[in-house]
Amino acid sequence: MPSPLTIHPLPGIPEIRPGDDLAAHLLGALSDAGLELLEGDVIVVAQKVVSKAEGSRAALADVTPRPWAQRWAERWGKDARQVELVLRESRRIVRAERGILVSETRHGFVCANAGVDLSNSGARDVAVLLPEDPDRSARLLRQALLERTGRAAGVIVADSFGRPWRHGLTQAALGVAGLTPVADLRGQADTEGRPMHVTQIALADELASAADLVCGKTARIPAALIRGAPGVARTPDPGPGSGLDLLRPAEQDLFR
Amino acid sequence: MPSPLTIHPLPGIPEIRPGDDLAAHLLGALSDAGLELLEGDVIVVAQKVVSKAEGSRAALADVTPRPWAQRWAERWGKDARQVELVLRESRRIVRAERGILVSETRHGFVCANAGVDLSNSGARDVAVLLPEDPDRSARLLRQALLERTGRAAGVIVADSFGRPWRHGLTQAALGVAGLTPVADLRGQADTEGRPMHVTQIALADELASAADLVCGKTARIPAALIRGAPGVARTPDPGPGSGLDLLRPAEQDLFR
Repeated sequence: MPSPLTIHPLPGIPEIRPGDDLAAHLLGALSDAGLELLEGDVIVVAQKVVSKAEGSRAALADVTPRPWAQRWAERWGKDARQVELVLRESRRIVRAERGILVSETRHGFVCANAGVDLSNSGARDVAVLLPEDPDRSARLLRQALLERTGRAAGVIVADSFGRPWRHGLTQAALGVAGLTPVADLRGQADTEGRPMHVTQIALADELASAADLVCGKTARIPAALIRGAPGVARTPDPGPGSGLDLLRPAEQDLFR
Repeated sequence: MPSPLTIHPLPGIPEIRPGDDLAAHLLGALSDAGLELLEGDVIVVAQKVVSKAEGSRAALADVTPRPWAQRWAERWGKDARQVELVLRESRRIVRAERGILVSETRHGFVCANAGVDLSNSGARDVAVLLPEDPDRSARLLRQALLERTGRAAGVIVADSFGRPWRHGLTQAALGVAGLTPVADLRGQADTEGRPMHVTQIALADELASAADLVCGKTARIPAALIRGAPGVARTPDPGPGSGLDLLRPAEQDLFR
């Protein structure tokens, strides 16, 4: 009988400040929930607390908007300093319409406002930015958890993204360590023996979305533990999986 | 302490034929897994078995491709009869490039090949189509489960869709009964009291993706039970939620 998959919310993590030891907070939350980390578990943690711990943020008072940012902000009723931050965090604007900026971030993620976020930032007029390198954030967190518990877990740094065509946000994996981001079923036969051409499952995005089900946006639950997930490395070496594996190569992208 | 969410795979469901009693098969699989359906549970079932039970399929031998379908098939090495079926199932072609057809189905879903699928179809040269009305499929399944168990559960009819920009498939909810497809957090204050403008979470898509984590594509596990999910109706009336609530209105869609 296949085992169930279990998702535990990890509440009780306090407001995170730059330099805070996020691994210690996660282990504390696990302990408070009566859980210990096991080999093969996955920790999904919100990008926002990772960014706060890493000090990935910007004070609006320090930002001088360029003319385009001022014009866009005036036209659509936005804060020009936030718009300027979005432009700085972007390497390409994908759409700028009806007050919505969809861009490709420095990392390659396509999302609204390049992940620049003023809500729940922990301070007034401070924007939280995406982590500089979410894979590195995930790897460091995995390593810290491994050193303190002796257990090899998967780590996902996740954020909520909108989608074209479909309404509402789902969580996406930005940074990944110790798990297979995309399960490649190409070449395996289907149940009638017909070759399956392109069945690649975005496991890490599905794990991130699953974790979101227990993390209410306003309930200060910035992390969850998933037990029983497929594709998790159980060795100290996290393996080659990267959040960038979830980015569609430009030549396969019909919607650039 | 918030409760965990658990996801149980429901294996052992045989190849489904037109007219089969899918609710009976699901209850049999639950029983084999040592589970009974509880109020507030969610059953996620693959579109393909729903379509098979409803006889939503087409024999390629009966399909005469139109000239465009013949040209496209010749150019890209496709089966012209399948291309014809894709056109019949579509109300709008969103992209036709590099051998890939992305269209808006009769229902309004934007996906590759309008959901027309030759793999695992249960017979040679038979294509499985999307259910005629996935919400109706979900409602009927919910009603059958309610009548036989007395328990009000949520039901999601799910399929795997690709996404622009991001690599790999995730599961999407096509039909929904007895649960809130999109959790609307607009207007609630964030943890600093700043109003949250547009935080709408696509709960049903996140539930569908979560279920996919326990349903291997080749393992003949076409359904899963999720226990502990938010937003599930516990009354006989399934409420107004529809899979169509997950479609972005045209006027908000920057990627038509």
